[in-house]
Amino acid sequence: MSANPQLTDDGRLRHLLTLEGLPARILTQILDTAASFLTVSEAERDVKKVPLLRGKAIFNIFFENSTRTRTTFEIAAKRLSADVVNLNINASSQSKGETLLDTVANLSAMQADMFIVRHAAAGASHLIARHVAPHIHVINAGDGRCAHPTQGLLDMFTLRHYKGAFHNLRVAIVGDVLHSRVARSQIHALTTLGCPEVRVVAPKTLLPRDVENLGVHVFHKMSEGIRDVDAVLMLRLQNERMRGSRLPSAGEYYKHWGLTPDKLKLAKPDAIVMHPGPMNRGVEIDSAVADGMQSVILSQVTFGIAVRMAVMSLLAGSGATGAQS
Amino acid sequence: MSANPQLTDDGRLRHLLTLEGLPARILTQILDTAASFLTVSEAERDVKKVPLLRGKAIFNIFFENSTRTRTTFEIAAKRLSADVVNLNINASSQSKGETLLDTVANLSAMQADMFIVRHAAAGASHLIARHVAPHIHVINAGDGRCAHPTQGLLDMFTLRHYKGAFHNLRVAIVGDVLHSRVARSQIHALTTLGCPEVRVVAPKTLLPRDVENLGVHVFHKMSEGIRDVDAVLMLRLQNERMRGSRLPSAGEYYKHWGLTPDKLKLAKPDAIVMHPGPMNRGVEIDSAVADGMQSVILSQVTFGIAVRMAVMSLLAGSGATGAQS
Amino acid sequence: MSANPQLTDDGRLRHLLTLEGLPARILTQILDTAASFLTVSEAERDVKKVPLLRGKAIFNIFFENSTRTRTTFEIAAKRLSADVVNLNINASSQSKGETLLDTVANLSAMQADMFIVRHAAAGASHLIARHVAPHIHVINAGDGRCAHPTQGLLDMFTLRHYKGAFHNLRVAIVGDVLHSRVARSQIHALTTLGCPEVRVVAPKTLLPRDVENLGVHVFHKMSEGIRDVDAVLMLRLQNERMRGSRLPSAGEYYKHWGLTPDKLKLAKPDAIVMHPGPMNRGVEIDSAVADGMQSVILSQVTFGIAVRMAVMSLLAGSGATGAQS
Repeated sequence: MSANPQLTDDGRLRHLLTLEGLPARILTQILDTAASFLTVSEAERDVKKVPLLRGKAIFNIFFENSTRTRTTFEIAAKRLSADVVNLNINASSQSKGETLLDTVANLSAMQADMFIVRHAAAGASHLIARHVAPHIHVINAGDGRCAHPTQGLLDMFTLRHYKGAFHNLRVAIVGDVLHSRVARSQIHALTTLGCPEVRVVAPKTLLPRDVENLGVHVFHKMSEGIRDVDAVLMLRLQNERMRGSRLPSAGEYYKHWGLTPDKLKLAKPDAIVMHPGPMNRGVEIDSAVADGMQSVILSQVTFGIAVRMAVMSLLAGSGATGAQS
Repeated sequence: MSANPQLTDDGRLRHLLTLEGLPARILTQILDTAASFLTVSEAERDVKKVPLLRGKAIFNIFFENSTRTRTTFEIAAKRLSADVVNLNINASSQSKGETLLDTVANLSAMQADMFIVRHAAAGASHLIARHVAPHIHVINAGDGRCAHPTQGLLDMFTLRHYKGAFHNLRVAIVGDVLHSRVARSQIHALTTLGCPEVRVVAPKTLLPRDVENLGVHVFHKMSEGIRDVDAVLMLRLQNERMRGSRLPSAGEYYKHWGLTPDKLKLAKPDAIVMHPGPMNRGVEIDSAVADGMQSVILSQVTFGIAVRMAVMSLLAGSGATGAQS
Repeated sequence: MSANPQLTDDGRLRHLLTLEGLPARILTQILDTAASFLTVSEAERDVKKVPLLRGKAIFNIFFENSTRTRTTFEIAAKRLSADVVNLNINASSQSKGETLLDTVANLSAMQADMFIVRHAAAGASHLIARHVAPHIHVINAGDGRCAHPTQGLLDMFTLRHYKGAFHNLRVAIVGDVLHSRVARSQIHALTTLGCPEVRVVAPKTLLPRDVENLGVHVFHKMSEGIRDVDAVLMLRLQNERMRGSRLPSAGEYYKHWGLTPDKLKLAKPDAIVMHPGPMNRGVEIDSAVADGMQSVILSQVTFGIAVRMAVMSLLAGSGATGAQS
């Protein structure tokens, strides 16, 4: 099977598992659909409620706990008028010795229309997508280390919302690129959408070896990496990394890699600052920046609802005609 | 009080606590109602959404955790357009020293219309049913060792769906009958519905002493017990039993009592295989059988939604005119 | 900032954080609105479902577990046709090092319309109310030691329902006044609503020093304190208090302060008995009283749904025009 398992035979979105390999056409369709869910209100940020998924059953299947992510999907589904069922699968069937695929087969048989899957193991949502009934759609809400494609999409939405287009953007991704699948999703999406200059800014110990092959420019100094960029995409420093040997103390990290007002002055005056949350204030980002005029961090959250609504409605619209991978 | 506490004075279903003592008329009414919730789609397995319980509040009161069972009831209630409230009662009121009946009285006063009750103690749902307000209906979602009448009902639905009727069926119930209330429910329902030959197939250590009094034929060998049957109803082997003294190893159990393709050949060629889930693959059932052509295990799950919808809608329809037991 | 942070500039309810300082006009408006949600049924106790909050997103943000309180708010919100999202915030974002205010800012950005907040720390809901976006309303569902203003309001509703008015009432609040914010809420509300005689009845060790300043009469003997009252408002004795040094055994407490049928005879013949639940039967209240003719304890629970619906609908009705405190 060589075709993209995320697409139907006629090229529509069937599952959303990763941004890797998704064509610009699909990414743009998602962003355009998300924009249609935002009302043109004073703040241009209200999300409308629509009946598009009335009668559909959406299962939030969380094999690891993540209140924040589960909530964004739950809110998005309810704004589409779907029925939402939350499943926290740790103590129950799994502990009864049932396999992942049996659990999924059972949930499929409960007349689910969509699975939102969060799992600690990389590839779990891919495995599930390969085995669900033809009418069921799967969205990866993070597999492995805090990775989920809807995060990458909402970042693209935010960039486009504030900067209008990608073809003239200079973007810096700053921080722990090595352990961040958010960064990987961002790089794929930016490249696909035609962003001409994507930079990664990180210490050598927090960069993957092959990073240049992804088509990015590598910087090992903040002062050079964020100079004259249109947007600074900060990454979260995982707490567990800070205890590891790859890093000095949180204070040392902040000194060299934390985004302070002074460092931000090196970017363009109208540069925006983004962060996927939750933030470590005083570690990767200074509170004056996080709460400052250039921060669009809370808009990312709002746009995330609209983007997730867009993904769900497009998946539901692709119907049961899709090829089963 | 000699009347059946599950029925109103005029013979309608008021609570569903056990299949024991329910007349064939009621069982058949539930199965017929469930059938009306299935659309005649290609797969004949879609469950329709209907507004029958709009505005009703259904409380999933789970005193022990069971994600799978809770989910089936939640989905069924939402397909009936009810409002569902999930309550996991372990750490909260119970730990504050409140009695079970005070907890239930409080939930009743919150304008509940129906209680779905799961409790580790046998008889808990009976106790609750005796004390709720007249307009509240109680469904037993398992009390004691994994027993719940809706499981027995969905098994009957599945048998009737694939075999058309009960009056000419030969059915084998295989496995740990001793610890299984599913088996007990199945036996009661099959006998009531007119099944002429119900077999139990198990080692002596996993059979209750009085089992013959229930009107079943006892077999101690798989090769004899499943010969020429129309349906094989496998039981789950509880993990905790396997560690006990009643049983040899899982491997030994599988050798003698596991349903393999070879053993299944002894049944009629069109025999169906059922299992209440979750399955222990390679213990009581071989994967080739579980996933094979004769397996209707996932259909059981789908039918379970329709059956639970049927029970809920019939209970709600019996109104507040029922006698309070 | 000197204005009441709970009110908008034009004097409407913006948040419900405490009953302290709320004018009688607002309290009465809430009680009147609650009454409109009760149907005039046989029992005069059914709560109607209405579409007032359709499309609104209400977040139950519980930083400490309380199934009972969460359920009452969830039911109330669903009877108003709102979308409800339950968040149990212990293990998730907070453990990832995010601050309370970042958590709240994120939830605000998810297009929430209302926050129901339960937190172990006193003042948490006030802090949150100071930082939410202008269109978001906050209801305190208990901060610190089991205090929540909706409990005080439902007590007032119950009193008015059974006694008609406040201006001629003699009310006794009995038990652990020292640790009870329920008592504090009751005293504020009763005084504001014009109740001429509010008594607190408790051992010295369970009374705050300044209690007389609140305008109440203090009694240290049950036989005197509840004599000729129209209503006895029992307080829950916290289990943890019973283990402390302030109190003798539960049996000793019951002997002196437990409400028995004999003691209740000292009150007016038509006096009602109230309790916020969960009850410690045989400690602060005798079962014969709890379940007796004069007990309105379960009505309190029912009225609590209507009162919470009233608060939510009034908050939503005050719109986004309110001043941000």
